[in-house]
Amino acid sequence: MSVLDWIAVDWGTSSLRAWGIGTDGAVLWSEASDTGMGGLGPSEFEPAFLDLVGHRLGESGPVRVIACGMVGARQGWVEARYRSVPCAPLDPVLTPAPTEDGRLDFRIISGLSQSNPADVMRGEETQIAGFQALNPKFDGVICLPGTHSKWVHVSAGEVVSFQTFMTGDLFAAIAGHTVLRHSVRTEDWSETAFAAAVDDAVSRPEKLAARLFSLRAEGLLADLPAADARSRLSGLLIGAELAAARPYWLGQNVAIVGAKGISARYASALSALGVSATIADGGQITLKGLAAARSLASESPS
Amino acid sequence: MSVLDWIAVDWGTSSLRAWGIGTDGAVLWSEASDTGMGGLGPSEFEPAFLDLVGHRLGESGPVRVIACGMVGARQGWVEARYRSVPCAPLDPVLTPAPTEDGRLDFRIISGLSQSNPADVMRGEETQIAGFQALNPKFDGVICLPGTHSKWVHVSAGEVVSFQTFMTGDLFAAIAGHTVLRHSVRTEDWSETAFAAAVDDAVSRPEKLAARLFSLRAEGLLADLPAADARSRLSGLLIGAELAAARPYWLGQNVAIVGAKGISARYASALSALGVSATIADGGQITLKGLAAARSLASESPS
Repeated sequence: MSVLDWIAVDWGTSSLRAWGIGTDGAVLWSEASDTGMGGLGPSEFEPAFLDLVGHRLGESGPVRVIACGMVGARQGWVEARYRSVPCAPLDPVLTPAPTEDGRLDFRIISGLSQSNPADVMRGEETQIAGFQALNPKFDGVICLPGTHSKWVHVSAGEVVSFQTFMTGDLFAAIAGHTVLRHSVRTEDWSETAFAAAVDDAVSRPEKLAARLFSLRAEGLLADLPAADARSRLSGLLIGAELAAARPYWLGQNVAIVGAKGISARYASALSALGVSATIADGGQITLKGLAAARSLASESPS
Repeated sequence: MSVLDWIAVDWGTSSLRAWGIGTDGAVLWSEASDTGMGGLGPSEFEPAFLDLVGHRLGESGPVRVIACGMVGARQGWVEARYRSVPCAPLDPVLTPAPTEDGRLDFRIISGLSQSNPADVMRGEETQIAGFQALNPKFDGVICLPGTHSKWVHVSAGEVVSFQTFMTGDLFAAIAGHTVLRHSVRTEDWSETAFAAAVDDAVSRPEKLAARLFSLRAEGLLADLPAADARSRLSGLLIGAELAAARPYWLGQNVAIVGAKGISARYASALSALGVSATIADGGQITLKGLAAARSLASESPS
């Protein structure tokens, strides 16, 4: 039976996931909680981590833990300084987190930064490395849709440039905290309304601000269904992202890495623009990237 | 001494204001509370109104009350149906609210609607009428900046067309409920940053979505001051509004009606686009509009 070799950790703003990896590379166990870094002070990270996986640790010396995500932000456990692009997504040098429990050797992966235009990522560099592990020859653009969507130009194994769009964050704020909250209360979806809104936002981006309140007005005057309003809001925001991200997808080889539903929406929006994007499986990408970081760190003398 | 003739009421989503008007037209008293319609069920409006002004009412028969704002929405006291543009901002016919207290004769001003593009207003029609009372010959465009900014084309005393932009609502949602909340925590202001952002959004509206996250990234990487971030966010959103509202201001005679600070920002943004807008005093405009509604209703046989 395989013995615990190291622990892979994805610690974001609102969630914490850990996988125990055996000496043969197999996943022995996994744990998850909603103890995201957003709610923790510096001294609370180690207890939170031990709460989740303490019962999984043996007594025979420290186990290597490799973590990615916001845990390495300035407000996280310890700051893992950004590395500037152009560079490979991962580096052999990781940032050790201060621990009191002798069973832990906790190391954090650095995020990436770009000075002009100013941009940052934390966690996505590990997903990019995971994608590269599966697609070692890939040259082109990786789109990682989500709360803060990233468009990443990758060439010869390096991240050349990237741009962040806070599309999911905007959708949640508008759907939850503006007058449109009355208009989009549903989980239903209209692909037709979504596609029309993407097309409208991409082809007439200067009209975007005029489109939003019409979702409310059409609800009051013409009984616009909530599914149409919600799909149009999503289409307008994704369309605005695509209009601004044009240099990233025009004539490029695009791969989408993300959750299934949102990835399909981006693929459908790009398809309408004549871009045939490949959807890569987002499920195990982060874990593969953490494994790549583990290999890289093992090969390094540090 | 002047005797109470009627009561003017401005009842919005989050506030309630009332003015007692004497037989000579003078304001005898005023009352205000934060009992907005947003927090009230249908049966709670009359008690809320009596709480505020009950002690001002005499015993000698009903007093006429004329109200504008969201109190006339479907979720308000009683629905005062929209009137379709093109039409004058006010109509002699008002909608009576059901009352139990014999001292009240409460009437609500209708909002305006437009079918294509779908749009609605409630309350602004009264401000427009107030502006017209001060500027009876005005032909051109009235801009009413705020939570839901309105651009209104007025000609020959009628509202011809209008468009709503939820700019203030968006600003509050983004500044309060997205990752940018960390970047814009200040009340300070940078006119330079605001002006540059307006120019950027008006001249390159297709880049808007790319600009937002840069406020966060520049804060992390280049210590962008919060005042610059806040002013740029405001400039980007007002710029997006101006880009979409171009048909309303291009070559038009523009008057701005609103609170002092936000009106000055719109005037400065328009000035950079070569539009010399007049700022009209927003303070007493609503009251003047309510007085116009009172005169109109008195002249009518209803």
